[in-house]
Amino acid sequence: MGMTGKEYIESLRKLKTRVYMFGEQIENWIDHPIIRPSINCVAMTYELATKPEYQDLMTAKSNLTGKTVNRFAHLHQSTDDLRKKVKMQRLLGQKTASCFQRCVGMDAFNAVYSTTFEVDEKYGTNYHKNFVEYLKFVQENDLIVDGAMTDPKGDRGLAPHAQRDPDLFLHIVERREDGIVVRGAKAHQTGSINSHEHIIMPTIAMGEADKDYAVSFACPSDVEGLYMIYGRQSCDTRKLEDNADVDLGNAKFGGQEALVVFDDVFIPNERIFLCGEYDFAGMLVERFAGYHRQSYGGCKVGVGDVVIGAAALAAEYNGAKKASHVKDKLIEMTHLNETLYCCGIACSAEGWKTKAGNYQIDLLLANVCKQNITRFPYEIVRLAEDIAGGLMVTMPAESDFKSDKVVGKNGETIGQICNKYFGANADVCTTEERMRVLRFLENICLGASAVGYRTESMHGAGSPQAQRIMISRQGNIEGKKELAKVIAGITKVDHGF
Amino acid sequence: MGMTGKEYIESLRKLKTRVYMFGEQIENWIDHPIIRPSINCVAMTYELATKPEYQDLMTAKSNLTGKTVNRFAHLHQSTDDLRKKVKMQRLLGQKTASCFQRCVGMDAFNAVYSTTFEVDEKYGTNYHKNFVEYLKFVQENDLIVDGAMTDPKGDRGLAPHAQRDPDLFLHIVERREDGIVVRGAKAHQTGSINSHEHIIMPTIAMGEADKDYAVSFACPSDVEGLYMIYGRQSCDTRKLEDNADVDLGNAKFGGQEALVVFDDVFIPNERIFLCGEYDFAGMLVERFAGYHRQSYGGCKVGVGDVVIGAAALAAEYNGAKKASHVKDKLIEMTHLNETLYCCGIACSAEGWKTKAGNYQIDLLLANVCKQNITRFPYEIVRLAEDIAGGLMVTMPAESDFKSDKVVGKNGETIGQICNKYFGANADVCTTEERMRVLRFLENICLGASAVGYRTESMHGAGSPQAQRIMISRQGNIEGKKELAKVIAGITKVDHGF
Amino acid sequence: MGMTGKEYIESLRKLKTRVYMFGEQIENWIDHPIIRPSINCVAMTYELATKPEYQDLMTAKSNLTGKTVNRFAHLHQSTDDLRKKVKMQRLLGQKTASCFQRCVGMDAFNAVYSTTFEVDEKYGTNYHKNFVEYLKFVQENDLIVDGAMTDPKGDRGLAPHAQRDPDLFLHIVERREDGIVVRGAKAHQTGSINSHEHIIMPTIAMGEADKDYAVSFACPSDVEGLYMIYGRQSCDTRKLEDNADVDLGNAKFGGQEALVVFDDVFIPNERIFLCGEYDFAGMLVERFAGYHRQSYGGCKVGVGDVVIGAAALAAEYNGAKKASHVKDKLIEMTHLNETLYCCGIACSAEGWKTKAGNYQIDLLLANVCKQNITRFPYEIVRLAEDIAGGLMVTMPAESDFKSDKVVGKNGETIGQICNKYFGANADVCTTEERMRVLRFLENICLGASAVGYRTESMHGAGSPQAQRIMISRQGNIEGKKELAKVIAGITKVDHGF
Amino acid sequence: MGMTGKEYIESLRKLKTRVYMFGEQIENWIDHPIIRPSINCVAMTYELATKPEYQDLMTAKSNLTGKTVNRFAHLHQSTDDLRKKVKMQRLLGQKTASCFQRCVGMDAFNAVYSTTFEVDEKYGTNYHKNFVEYLKFVQENDLIVDGAMTDPKGDRGLAPHAQRDPDLFLHIVERREDGIVVRGAKAHQTGSINSHEHIIMPTIAMGEADKDYAVSFACPSDVEGLYMIYGRQSCDTRKLEDNADVDLGNAKFGGQEALVVFDDVFIPNERIFLCGEYDFAGMLVERFAGYHRQSYGGCKVGVGDVVIGAAALAAEYNGAKKASHVKDKLIEMTHLNETLYCCGIACSAEGWKTKAGNYQIDLLLANVCKQNITRFPYEIVRLAEDIAGGLMVTMPAESDFKSDKVVGKNGETIGQICNKYFGANADVCTTEERMRVLRFLENICLGASAVGYRTESMHGAGSPQAQRIMISRQGNIEGKKELAKVIAGITKVDHGF
Repeated sequence: MGMTGKEYIESLRKLKTRVYMFGEQIENWIDHPIIRPSINCVAMTYELATKPEYQDLMTAKSNLTGKTVNRFAHLHQSTDDLRKKVKMQRLLGQKTASCFQRCVGMDAFNAVYSTTFEVDEKYGTNYHKNFVEYLKFVQENDLIVDGAMTDPKGDRGLAPHAQRDPDLFLHIVERREDGIVVRGAKAHQTGSINSHEHIIMPTIAMGEADKDYAVSFACPSDVEGLYMIYGRQSCDTRKLEDNADVDLGNAKFGGQEALVVFDDVFIPNERIFLCGEYDFAGMLVERFAGYHRQSYGGCKVGVGDVVIGAAALAAEYNGAKKASHVKDKLIEMTHLNETLYCCGIACSAEGWKTKAGNYQIDLLLANVCKQNITRFPYEIVRLAEDIAGGLMVTMPAESDFKSDKVVGKNGETIGQICNKYFGANADVCTTEERMRVLRFLENICLGASAVGYRTESMHGAGSPQAQRIMISRQGNIEGKKELAKVIAGITKVDHGF
Repeated sequence: MGMTGKEYIESLRKLKTRVYMFGEQIENWIDHPIIRPSINCVAMTYELATKPEYQDLMTAKSNLTGKTVNRFAHLHQSTDDLRKKVKMQRLLGQKTASCFQRCVGMDAFNAVYSTTFEVDEKYGTNYHKNFVEYLKFVQENDLIVDGAMTDPKGDRGLAPHAQRDPDLFLHIVERREDGIVVRGAKAHQTGSINSHEHIIMPTIAMGEADKDYAVSFACPSDVEGLYMIYGRQSCDTRKLEDNADVDLGNAKFGGQEALVVFDDVFIPNERIFLCGEYDFAGMLVERFAGYHRQSYGGCKVGVGDVVIGAAALAAEYNGAKKASHVKDKLIEMTHLNETLYCCGIACSAEGWKTKAGNYQIDLLLANVCKQNITRFPYEIVRLAEDIAGGLMVTMPAESDFKSDKVVGKNGETIGQICNKYFGANADVCTTEERMRVLRFLENICLGASAVGYRTESMHGAGSPQAQRIMISRQGNIEGKKELAKVIAGITKVDHGF
Repeated sequence: MGMTGKEYIESLRKLKTRVYMFGEQIENWIDHPIIRPSINCVAMTYELATKPEYQDLMTAKSNLTGKTVNRFAHLHQSTDDLRKKVKMQRLLGQKTASCFQRCVGMDAFNAVYSTTFEVDEKYGTNYHKNFVEYLKFVQENDLIVDGAMTDPKGDRGLAPHAQRDPDLFLHIVERREDGIVVRGAKAHQTGSINSHEHIIMPTIAMGEADKDYAVSFACPSDVEGLYMIYGRQSCDTRKLEDNADVDLGNAKFGGQEALVVFDDVFIPNERIFLCGEYDFAGMLVERFAGYHRQSYGGCKVGVGDVVIGAAALAAEYNGAKKASHVKDKLIEMTHLNETLYCCGIACSAEGWKTKAGNYQIDLLLANVCKQNITRFPYEIVRLAEDIAGGLMVTMPAESDFKSDKVVGKNGETIGQICNKYFGANADVCTTEERMRVLRFLENICLGASAVGYRTESMHGAGSPQAQRIMISRQGNIEGKKELAKVIAGITKVDHGF
Repeated sequence: MGMTGKEYIESLRKLKTRVYMFGEQIENWIDHPIIRPSINCVAMTYELATKPEYQDLMTAKSNLTGKTVNRFAHLHQSTDDLRKKVKMQRLLGQKTASCFQRCVGMDAFNAVYSTTFEVDEKYGTNYHKNFVEYLKFVQENDLIVDGAMTDPKGDRGLAPHAQRDPDLFLHIVERREDGIVVRGAKAHQTGSINSHEHIIMPTIAMGEADKDYAVSFACPSDVEGLYMIYGRQSCDTRKLEDNADVDLGNAKFGGQEALVVFDDVFIPNERIFLCGEYDFAGMLVERFAGYHRQSYGGCKVGVGDVVIGAAALAAEYNGAKKASHVKDKLIEMTHLNETLYCCGIACSAEGWKTKAGNYQIDLLLANVCKQNITRFPYEIVRLAEDIAGGLMVTMPAESDFKSDKVVGKNGETIGQICNKYFGANADVCTTEERMRVLRFLENICLGASAVGYRTESMHGAGSPQAQRIMISRQGNIEGKKELAKVIAGITKVDHGF
């Protein structure tokens, strides 16, 4: 069926995506050492789908065409599909220990699919058909699509139309016969650079005055007028070092973020999914956010599995494997990680069928899921740092371990001295293996991948307070008060006995 | 179909159950004010099953007879059944704010059903058929059965057969042609007194020397030689007070615990489900414990709903409803409670089919569920106490509020003075309503029901460390280490790109 | 010097204190089983002061008279005195595992002393001299004085003068030549009944319209027009049972709360410490609350010591002493308890001298202290329940253990059966000793003493949010922002290198 | 009195300290961009001591010479000195937001001073006099001394003498008339490079077979045979970038770690403070660790102040200052930070006089202090990341904000686009100011300074489990059990009433 990882990477070369980093344009961004690890993560979403052992999780039968497609391009047809989504994400988290970016498109597909159905139903528009055609094209070509929601937002107290600069939320600047012209930007875009296509959605519920901001559409990554400015992150340039390997912790995979700028981009009518129906902006946001809060109950759990494994390895390499407090900390890490998984699975199992026919997760439980994600990975990291020991941050560089520079009275080199003093028990591991696992933990706890495992867990798919507001709304406090009134004897009930 | 709540209560009168409390035998235990609230909880498992609106959750179609039976007597036929079990438990928790006791039988049925199948398969015994016949009898007569596992245990470092007193674990003292005679006791039995029948299981994995202890069987509550000694609990005698109502907090429902003593009880062959096959004791324990750890993800969540509702009511009655910190605490309580529910649902959705054909929960996730239950209800209670305010524990008695005794210079009675100073805003509630909700919170936080909501959450279905051991065993730490080795570059893998 | 415990108890008999409970007046309240344990706690503040080994902590040299007085009647002359206060409270917590009530008077003395000095300085009033004379009388006669602050408060959104019932805050109803007449009530009064005297303070900062509410004064417990209505608490009537001992958990000591009603009480001029100077109400409240939030860093730590000891004993009696998880939980309990102590000591060590000359604690740290008190005892209790095991709440009554009623086939009594099955290892403890320690834990976790150790920790000396407001005010966030600006290079600073 | 910051930096140039980094020797390490921020921190310990407003905290009167010396070279003469130490550390944490390294020498001085006194007392050795003379030299010349304790340790289950490589713990390889020759290394040395001198101590309690490892001495940083290998840390090379400023977050200050290798270094007799008296190794370790665990209650609190201030600034710049959840998080951060301070102050206030005459902190409370330090900074960081928002890790580089590269249709440069979309409300701050505060938070949460604020908080002065062992030992559990026995009525006591 779909592309291999390698084919996906080659497919990117056909695009003329414009990427700027450190104040300059990056010509060959596909092979750029800082960007490539993030591309490799996406490649895994393709590669694993070609492996027989992962078919069940990685692919699905399209309800649109009846063909087998990558699950990331699938419309969920059952709660079983929703659970498989979470399991696919856990699998990919385990295989990359990073963000693999393709969920955001999948979550957009499912949210846009069901919302456009209801928009059309009310307004007689044609968005749902537009979207179905678009998704067939995506499925057919096995494309990755960045789902973009978050605008720069400016002053948070003001509505989109009331901002000092009208572009702080993406909006329609011109309406033509054949389409629209849009301007603005989407911030914090993890998967934008590595995607073939983009699907844009509004970021908040809107009123009538925000009509021009209530817009959803799709476009290719290299559409005229679109460019990206790269965000810089912890330890980014370590990847630029000569022969960098051990010091990277995770040499193959990584993450990134970019600002995607829409500099008067033209969108043809057939790629428009919302265009002024402001009263549906809220539904689209809520459904997308719901799916995406579910997602974290899969991907971050997979990364957590690797962190737990690394901490266990570090303990073994440090000779502390049998200490009861180490065992107990590993249990606690596992317990927290599986609690997150429970939330991901539960909001899936309790999913429901939309009017359009695809399945939506349980909104309350998905928000509970994400709220826990803003807490537990931090504690897992703290415990990992505890188990790893101080060496994680005091260890000399790979270049020291490999240096031939003589420093000792008996002609010992820097490399030999490093190996002498940081050497592990040879029965268990080599010094390099010990370095490798500690550098991976450095990477995930406070290096490049900490952005993905910690900060993204905090703010991705909405900051903690956003979930609390949803939990408050969905928690049915009035119903609970009535339960209490009955038990406390305030509301009298005759139970018949 | 089944009995109403009232019919159930009447059905107990036919039994000659022997109950001792405060050093004496209780003759009419069914109408005893301390015991009755606990019976009422069980009655609700009958009553709700007769209501059309709860049919889907409260009943199921028996795989043995094809007839509709109370779900508490059902063998789970799918993961859907497992999820419905959790929802039924949440419902009953909401309706009683107490332990309704009937799950322990349901969990025993499902564990014994699948285990006996595998025992028979290995040893050619007849236990599975015995059990199927027994369960048909239970379903047919809509009986409640106490599933009893925990022995007194004596010295925890010693195996059953090695204890100073051989009776500290229940065991076979005589094997006859037509059955066996057993001796010993089961401790911490919440539902024993209120049950028609008992199903007994061993409490730990066993070795060959413990053969006589590897025994499982069923018997009626009033079988010759069986009696129960009542445990005393916080505020128990408040229920004995004249006209007790408001001060009880939860006047209708409550909990209890008893020691069930088997004083050489005869068990006929057809009621025996395990008799010496010590190598299956562990499986029976693990399966039962698994189901029962799932159960807490339903029942305690339901109680939590009532606690949250009561805290919200208390805030309203106290005039603090709009304080942002109160709202935030209610959100936190909801978040914690729903996290527990996620665990209950997730271990159900991930259930699997046993050889016998019924469904077992996911063991890792069920243990994670119970582990969270040993923590979050305590924090929910803490937040409830915070919101309730000090009045919860400084308020005069109901008899003060109703007293005509004159104490004031202008002839004010005690009742009038209490109402004057503890009166709430009449627009929102009466003084009595405020008292009621605060007394309910007292009851659940540190009164009679704190036993069920807190201590039982801690120790029921196994103490916290028991779950940690299972989490450690089920957490696949070796697999996680391998994941980390690949990511850290210790195990080299060619991804093809 | 002062009275013995016994002499203190006898001294109460001379008073005509009016106490109502369960709707009736209690004539001999001093020997009433529900009240007596609370009196015994106060008696310990007298008794220990007579023991040479406790002199340094329990007594001090009065700055008013140069004589040795009970430290509870002392004005703190140094930060050393403040630390000794905390240590004295920890000692008494250890000896009673309850609230010993006398701190509230000590905290009132120190707050009124320094505040009246500043009132007089501004208004030329005579309050400070009044108070000094009063305190000499208290010191001379070794009296215990209840410091009363909390009014019923009614609608929390309204000022005292704006309440529907003017009496919801205590106020002056008449001003005479020789004094004033006051009306109202003080709620949640732990030590009122057992005190010789009362010192009354306003409960919030006030404006001009609240002038009549800005009142502080002293009066005897049996002054004409004053009476108390007893609050009912968890397990209160267990103390009324015949031969109650083991089941009480803590038979000698306990707590209580009462509503103190002022039914037009006359206060002579020389006992008035504030009378309309509303602008000082806030200072008095803040200083008293500061001292009282410090207090909890002593008394609750002492109770915590007993809880930790009891948990360790329970583990030993249960045969689980050596389990690594039990050891770790005891360490955690100790860690939390000593963190509380650190807060009590730190706000004392950082105390400062008032204009009047006595020492005030550090306000920020005292609020931090109390905030932790609203959390850690709950976790300590949770861990204690974990270690104790389920038997804590399933154990039969003392009367069962002692019952001669025959229940067994071989003539065994209820008592014998209880001892057979709940007996501990005779080498370590008797069954009764095991019961005793478990009943103590029941008492502190969810019985009578849970009110003192948990709810009082939450709401005594102000509810959690009250401390958060003070932490916010005292935390100097603007200063911290300036620090950050310098480090981040927003404010440029030349360091000279 | 002492040197200015600038003079200190110049004084380092006189040394021939050997430093290796990335496999090469660094010649001018003093001006090396990676190393200099760490030197600047030390410079602040000199600079602030010259400012009149900080004299009271930063200097003290030497008990050895009567002269005013930098407090970092002072022997604590009272608990007041101990509290001032903590306050000095908080001040320096506030001024550097980094580790300023000089405490480790101060803690070593005080531990060696009191321990050598007791060694001499027992063995008639001359170590105390040696040390006093040495300290006079340090005080006189205002030197900074690295106190080095941690050896590489090899297999943690084996004693020093039993390691596969005898050098894994530093030891005596030759004893001469005039001194000793030592070999080995000290790991995780934060202040080694920037120090004039080193004072070496053993790292664990020892037995007779470890005699050659029981050694303590002083030597200059550039003594023959001594060299250092630099550890690499998160974002280290960002400091090497051209014109790096904003992206550094904290451009002036930072931290570092090194391995210090002793390649057969000769130590003359007069600089030896322990030489084979293995029975005192434990005392030296415990006392040093005690002081150093106290230290964290000052320095990390100071850093915490800056983090709280930065989070408050970020909220203001983001326009979220007034959100109640933001305010509440700032209160929580303050509460946690001040709890740490309480611990630092309390173990100081409870200090005691050693036989030698200087003051030692309270060991139990100092361990409690450090245990909290292994937890709260992690939660403070989590809350800071929450408040900061995702932009902290998605923001383009400083070079983007300053780039003139044209990218927009209307000629907008990268810099203009970045300012357009990430600009803040000009009334509150410039875009650069917003970037600065977010980059500072990135730096402390997961950049270069996260090593100091997080990992060092975890492992510095001993890993969490080391403190738990000490808490267990110092917690007097037997005494607490006795308290519980009395209260529970197991030990009968006659209180006299």
